[in-house]
Amino acid sequence: MSDGELAFDEQDLLPAVAQDADTGEVVMLAYVSEAALERSRETGYAHYYSRSRDELWKKGGTSGHTQEIEEIRMDCDGDAILYLIDQEGGACHTGYRSCFHRTVDGEVVGEQVFDPDDVYE
Amino acid sequence: MSDGELAFDEQDLLPAVAQDADTGEVVMLAYVSEAALERSRETGYAHYYSRSRDELWKKGGTSGHTQEIEEIRMDCDGDAILYLIDQEGGACHTGYRSCFHRTVDGEVVGEQVFDPDDVYE
Repeated sequence: MSDGELAFDEQDLLPAVAQDADTGEVVMLAYVSEAALERSRETGYAHYYSRSRDELWKKGGTSGHTQEIEEIRMDCDGDAILYLIDQEGGACHTGYRSCFHRTVDGEVVGEQVFDPDDVYE
Repeated sequence: MSDGELAFDEQDLLPAVAQDADTGEVVMLAYVSEAALERSRETGYAHYYSRSRDELWKKGGTSGHTQEIEEIRMDCDGDAILYLIDQEGGACHTGYRSCFHRTVDGEVVGEQVFDPDDVYE
């Protein structure tokens, strides 16, 4: 383990990109604390740190749309990580497979895979 | 254009993930200012904002390893963007195709495609 090479920012966080290991689709970007990263490694499921709720969370803990981890990579200067994952259901709380389901012009390019009203009460 | 939906952070930046449009490989994560994003849209080549040098830069401006843009996506809450690009050469200054060429355990999993000594003088 080379966690010593990771360069956490002033908030002790790193941006983490989650990519579907099979399809290559980038499904979300969130942040990890050192504890969230450790939890991901220990459990084999992606954990993040919520900046708005100020807490460590397991992706899919509420929705069941978990991310089983295949591999965790770091970038060259250790200030970003990449989770290669198997996405259960959809990553986005809006029901899309990926949070990146729109162009910056607002055109929808992604696939909606669940109805959020059925998942979040 | 829906730039009004983008949620730039306190430093007026957004994290930007660059993904090879053909292979799906995630090649780097950097940051964009509003001006960098505009420059990318105007020129068709990926631009970023360097937090360490405090300046807008064109990827490949020195190395020639440019990123021609196929599409720019934003995530659901507008606080991250995804550049789908055609990567010339390698994205990483270390000569690898991707900056994410190591696992967090330090194992090299990526492909070195150029010798940095030949590119950066």
